[in-house]
Amino acid sequence: MSDQTKTVMPRFAPVILAGGSGTRFWPRSRRARAKQVLALDGDQTMIQQTLTRLLPLADAKDVWVVTNSLLDKTISGQMPSVDPLHILSEPAARNTAPACALAAFLLETREPNTVIGIFPSDHVVKDMPRFAEVLRVGIDIAAGGEAIVVLGVPPTRPETGYGYVEQGALVAEAASADGTSPVKVFRVKRFREKPDRHTAENFLAAGNFAWNGGIFLWSARTLANAIREHAPDMAPMLEKIAVAHGTADFEKVFAEEYPKCENISIDYAVLERRSIKGEQKSEIYCLPADFGWNDLGSWASLHEHLGEAEADNVIDGATTGLVTIQSTGNYVYAPGKMVALLGVDDLVVVETDDALLITTRDRSQDVSKIVRAIYEGGREELM
Amino acid sequence: MSDQTKTVMPRFAPVILAGGSGTRFWPRSRRARAKQVLALDGDQTMIQQTLTRLLPLADAKDVWVVTNSLLDKTISGQMPSVDPLHILSEPAARNTAPACALAAFLLETREPNTVIGIFPSDHVVKDMPRFAEVLRVGIDIAAGGEAIVVLGVPPTRPETGYGYVEQGALVAEAASADGTSPVKVFRVKRFREKPDRHTAENFLAAGNFAWNGGIFLWSARTLANAIREHAPDMAPMLEKIAVAHGTADFEKVFAEEYPKCENISIDYAVLERRSIKGEQKSEIYCLPADFGWNDLGSWASLHEHLGEAEADNVIDGATTGLVTIQSTGNYVYAPGKMVALLGVDDLVVVETDDALLITTRDRSQDVSKIVRAIYEGGREELM
Repeated sequence: MSDQTKTVMPRFAPVILAGGSGTRFWPRSRRARAKQVLALDGDQTMIQQTLTRLLPLADAKDVWVVTNSLLDKTISGQMPSVDPLHILSEPAARNTAPACALAAFLLETREPNTVIGIFPSDHVVKDMPRFAEVLRVGIDIAAGGEAIVVLGVPPTRPETGYGYVEQGALVAEAASADGTSPVKVFRVKRFREKPDRHTAENFLAAGNFAWNGGIFLWSARTLANAIREHAPDMAPMLEKIAVAHGTADFEKVFAEEYPKCENISIDYAVLERRSIKGEQKSEIYCLPADFGWNDLGSWASLHEHLGEAEADNVIDGATTGLVTIQSTGNYVYAPGKMVALLGVDDLVVVETDDALLITTRDRSQDVSKIVRAIYEGGREELM
Repeated sequence: MSDQTKTVMPRFAPVILAGGSGTRFWPRSRRARAKQVLALDGDQTMIQQTLTRLLPLADAKDVWVVTNSLLDKTISGQMPSVDPLHILSEPAARNTAPACALAAFLLETREPNTVIGIFPSDHVVKDMPRFAEVLRVGIDIAAGGEAIVVLGVPPTRPETGYGYVEQGALVAEAASADGTSPVKVFRVKRFREKPDRHTAENFLAAGNFAWNGGIFLWSARTLANAIREHAPDMAPMLEKIAVAHGTADFEKVFAEEYPKCENISIDYAVLERRSIKGEQKSEIYCLPADFGWNDLGSWASLHEHLGEAEADNVIDGATTGLVTIQSTGNYVYAPGKMVALLGVDDLVVVETDDALLITTRDRSQDVSKIVRAIYEGGREELM
């Protein structure tokens, strides 16, 4: 996009949440090599892809990252254009509310109308132009004052692993670049926690429910005020940390105050409380995230993302060749190897220098059980 | 066994047939690293195990090996106690009849009463004392003159991949060391080629059929005469080669004459012809090979050989650890790796430096199809 387009946009500060431990992609992911710093679907790592799709919307100097001490150096190395002072390493893991709130207090003191965007660091997007188009509409809405914008992923299955956004009335349609796919803006009626299977099926059938993909937009002032209103206990600590940022005391204050914050998600701390409060006259809007979103929650998700059809064999990791005989739907990661499949279907086989995982696409969501067993077996070098 | 026992035995010359190409254990086996030179089930390679179980019965100086130029140096290295002049490298692959016949003509000129034993180089035996016990009885019978002795493996399934030996009358029982398991001696009625499934089931039900495991015993003179009678065309070539052995001309004569021999198995060239001829008054005897024989014909056979029960996971190759969750009956070879199995059954996964095979126990007999595809794909470095 042109510089001109950028100049007419509100100031936009993406906050990338990169503290996840990523056990689901074991054995490729480890504690110090979590999913967000892995190149799971191409040359760029997940967090590099996250930055790449934000740079048409924001200046690199306005990007913030909240991560942990196991990953901060790797992330700095992967994001040389991001100010090292903007890469914040949590002294203790505290879920998303304190991380979002810290960003809000930091930016509120500088320029309260800055639009903050919260972005998970480990998701993928197939249609980057559409991503930018939807985000621009959302940023404009959030820049208007009190509004909170959430992106809702069009659901394709009765997934029980995500929270849902219940959409209310359609309040606007922003024209799209191609003229045929306007960006729709819905009021949010309610946020719904991860449902059981039956409820998820009802959501899907109802047609006005979207997955909560964890992408939110709001002005620094709106978010800071929302924290003060809905999570007042953590506000004083985070304000202290924000004041200390850039000073010699920062590390000390951060280490002392941050662990005192409640370990709670931004969804639960702010959005659900606010949506219940303002059910009929919500200031929360939902924009469909119709840009090929995938959170790569498991090896099966990666297979789905990389393959064109479910029956495709996805052979990954710079293998040196492939022979398949009567085999379909497998995902294999085996760098430097000739891979031979004979009479096998729907398997997941992942090989690293020190480990070999063999499972099925259906069971790959349970890989964390393997990691737990490794922990219990005292093999921390493999975690 | 004591030297004294050896001295009362007839001179015994084992001929180990080691020319097989061993595509069934790809990717561990390759053309220059065939099954017989691999340590598939322990520290010793298959051919080293073959020698180890023969040394209580024969002097190392009486051992002969017939192999090919891809394997001869590896075999010499693995069998330092065997005279290098006794390791014969076939100028062209010619099945088992010329190899056996060559041994017969070589030994007939030296000591015609020597008992020659033919042994595949790539089978395993669980009960080595019983192996020696059965062999001693067979050697004694073969030393008596015209007799031919074949070992018959007690069949455990209607296998269509082996030839069968139809046993006739029980003619003797030799006492065993423990007094409870005499070595039975049956006349052979007929050799039967690899049967179809229905025929194999009938053989199994009949109770007097054994698998032909390719182990034969006969005196050098008897075998040489049998070749002259039943395969007269190849006799002159092999006699020429035998005469040249140990002279400067040997390599030249071997290279010129051996490829002229018919490409035929000893079963077909001699045994089947003789058994039909002498149906009622056979000089061929069968001794049950009841010593835990397994020809390791596939990865599934190796799983069966190494595991105690079918549902066992057999994890092979100096792995560094194992986590299994709801997984049974798998065979995994992954040296240096932590292996994690999650919700998978009956798979075969084999990893080498340059290749990764993923198949099932049921399909592992078709691994040669993979090797063929690799050949057709021009990837000869992987064969």
